[in-house]
Amino acid sequence: MALVNERTSAERPGIQKVVVVGAGFGGLAVAHGLDGVQVDVTVVDANNFHTFRPLLYQVATSGLSPADVAYPVRGIVSRHANLRFRHDEVTGVDWDRHLVVLASGAALPFDRLVVAAGAAVNDFGTPGVAEHGFPMYQLPDAVRLRNHIIGRFEVAEADPSVVDDGGLTFVVVGGGPTGVEVAGALIELIDKVLERDFRGSAVDVDRARVVLVEAADDLLPMFHPTSRRYTRRTLAGRGVEVRAGTTVTEVTASRVRLGDGAQIPTHTLVWAAGVRGAPLAEALGVPLGRGGRVPVDPDLRIPGHPEAFVVGDLAASGDGDGGLLPGVAQVAIQGGRHVARLIAREVDHRNADGNGAGGRGDVHEPFRYRDKGSMATIGRASAVAELGHGVRLKGFTAWVAWLGLHLVYLMGFRNRLMVFVNWAWNYLTWDRGARLILGAGEGDDTRPKRDASRQERTPPVG
Amino acid sequence: MALVNERTSAERPGIQKVVVVGAGFGGLAVAHGLDGVQVDVTVVDANNFHTFRPLLYQVATSGLSPADVAYPVRGIVSRHANLRFRHDEVTGVDWDRHLVVLASGAALPFDRLVVAAGAAVNDFGTPGVAEHGFPMYQLPDAVRLRNHIIGRFEVAEADPSVVDDGGLTFVVVGGGPTGVEVAGALIELIDKVLERDFRGSAVDVDRARVVLVEAADDLLPMFHPTSRRYTRRTLAGRGVEVRAGTTVTEVTASRVRLGDGAQIPTHTLVWAAGVRGAPLAEALGVPLGRGGRVPVDPDLRIPGHPEAFVVGDLAASGDGDGGLLPGVAQVAIQGGRHVARLIAREVDHRNADGNGAGGRGDVHEPFRYRDKGSMATIGRASAVAELGHGVRLKGFTAWVAWLGLHLVYLMGFRNRLMVFVNWAWNYLTWDRGARLILGAGEGDDTRPKRDASRQERTPPVG
Repeated sequence: MALVNERTSAERPGIQKVVVVGAGFGGLAVAHGLDGVQVDVTVVDANNFHTFRPLLYQVATSGLSPADVAYPVRGIVSRHANLRFRHDEVTGVDWDRHLVVLASGAALPFDRLVVAAGAAVNDFGTPGVAEHGFPMYQLPDAVRLRNHIIGRFEVAEADPSVVDDGGLTFVVVGGGPTGVEVAGALIELIDKVLERDFRGSAVDVDRARVVLVEAADDLLPMFHPTSRRYTRRTLAGRGVEVRAGTTVTEVTASRVRLGDGAQIPTHTLVWAAGVRGAPLAEALGVPLGRGGRVPVDPDLRIPGHPEAFVVGDLAASGDGDGGLLPGVAQVAIQGGRHVARLIAREVDHRNADGNGAGGRGDVHEPFRYRDKGSMATIGRASAVAELGHGVRLKGFTAWVAWLGLHLVYLMGFRNRLMVFVNWAWNYLTWDRGARLILGAGEGDDTRPKRDASRQERTPPVG
Repeated sequence: MALVNERTSAERPGIQKVVVVGAGFGGLAVAHGLDGVQVDVTVVDANNFHTFRPLLYQVATSGLSPADVAYPVRGIVSRHANLRFRHDEVTGVDWDRHLVVLASGAALPFDRLVVAAGAAVNDFGTPGVAEHGFPMYQLPDAVRLRNHIIGRFEVAEADPSVVDDGGLTFVVVGGGPTGVEVAGALIELIDKVLERDFRGSAVDVDRARVVLVEAADDLLPMFHPTSRRYTRRTLAGRGVEVRAGTTVTEVTASRVRLGDGAQIPTHTLVWAAGVRGAPLAEALGVPLGRGGRVPVDPDLRIPGHPEAFVVGDLAASGDGDGGLLPGVAQVAIQGGRHVARLIAREVDHRNADGNGAGGRGDVHEPFRYRDKGSMATIGRASAVAELGHGVRLKGFTAWVAWLGLHLVYLMGFRNRLMVFVNWAWNYLTWDRGARLILGAGEGDDTRPKRDASRQERTPPVG
């Protein structure tokens, strides 16, 4: 097939090579959408795996293994004859020569470019977050957080006085789905699993606290008030202290200061308050919008660069009402499919008469996002789901809907099976098998050390 | 129960506190054996998990996730009222004050001490092994090796010229079970999984080589010649180049020199040639035997320290024929049970009259190892097993026996279930879902870099 493609490409001027930057939801949707289209597609990513980000919070709270939410990109691209993968980091784009520049020093030529490089954590300039906060965006972030959380309890066993200093206080910043999910899963891990692990030990697990801070007046601001009320009540009922309507103004190794003047002693700050465009955006040489995202035309092309598209979290694309589309998986997936469709149409046009006429379909069709709804899990048998058309679920029903939907969307059957078995096991036994502290070298990073700073940052490990 | 134990302990002079160093097979066998005995047992380990070492090679070859072969120690000890866990590293023993000294600066008092600290890699002074070799003893070793192996193929895609320099040649040193298992699983990973992953890419996977080097004249020297012949033939049939009767004399970043004068270009040297006593042995202040192991009396006590035992890989205990017992799981497990029995008898004696008389059982009963046989897996549907009494299995039968036995011995039902599901999946699909390169930071360690040295060492991650 590779030979066939090359021959076909040679006969077909114009669009032969498509480079897709990023193997997230957006990038993979582009790749899948170009299956069977006569172009050579190269997906470039600095990781050799796709991360199923909606389940990262379960890795962070010991419910799943890293491999359960990661899928090797080659396992996907090798099924399609016109797809290739390149394990490298993109450092820039040479627009004149139509080259994607890689960290290794190599370059990939392109006729069409799709930038789906995702986002990075946004600390909104809050002092101390970069040094002391635990982000929740990449897989290593989740592993690092898991090691740190479990490690706090081991440290408390060696030196119970750290509890007075906030050693077992976990502050989660951001009341969106990620923050709600981390806080909910964390209180469950503590109450159901660690409480049992540390029974009879020097650690009084009952003194552990989970605090959820949200700048807006309520959690899950994008949800209906009914869902928000349910979420807040359920979290509070399980022991999460919710502080809405206040911001974090400063973070140190052992304190979080809030805008309302309060100060919380804590050695763990989980930062789920927002994201901005990935750093690659700055290397594109195009004007950037708010939060470092790339403003795009309605068809997702970069203004002035009709040969390039941006999809997913990195795109600042209008929602048709003057706002911007949110950075969620569905926007990336639908955007990726849309771009694949436009590229396929362009190829079709070229094939028709070699000059770009005679093909079917508008190559500048605007992207229209179909909102399929939102979901957030609060914990065991408890979630909120809004499916559009006024359909709102909460509690057990919403939780089952959430489970099913996430299993369906998980890449690859193996992962789906693993996650299902894990969930069934966790549900039936209240166990969390992955509560490992597994660090570099001998996995010793979170052991109490004589003169260790209170909040060491440990290299992540599965 | 904790209160009851404390009260009982206070009434019972002599043996109240048992410290077990190490949560491997030996240490956990001691802890299990002391369940219900009226002593307080503290298990100390620098990892918060037990590693099921016999399956490490499957982690190294992408067949299993780290969490599949690791089990949280607290999940075990919390089930028993008289067991405690301490997540710390033991740095020495104060024999006069009967204290175990910890890296954190704390100390644990003991009346009986069991040192089950295991082994460390032995490079026998071979130049370059420490810098360039990949050991296979700890879980992070396996993860690091996995990242490196998968990374070699990604590097070869970016720069196919590395193949001529040995970039896809994998040299495994050591023809014991670990070396055979790594080599067999590696050739399978390459032929069945990576071959498919890199179809149509710039990498010619057929040029990858697996070379197994053994100093003795044959592989698996402890096995019967029939098993050895089968192993050698099967490995060769699957494409492993076996070089027996030669040693490794020097290792550089891109070359391995053999004792027979040959030189193999390779960027990957897996060192499974042997182990020595863990470094802790040197801090014990007792004379050490060959390979840094601790010589023990027939009842596994340290000579001159009747209050202390050594079990497992760290003990140099006689096999009754003038030799030493091998460093395998069964020796550690049986030794651990034996020591628990002796300690229980001592407690029984003290309880009987407070002076050490009137209890039942010999507190100096010599340890007798019952050899239950040996097994090694060569690969899919292929293994050798020697079960004693002249019973020898090979091929599919031995493989099924191996599977069953390892599932039974795996700690914890969750892991057993996970491993079984993984194995079933891998067997049916030839897939290896865990072929991830997941490193510190952004997981970018094995990406080709402009001026990276040929064999970078990456921090391990799950």
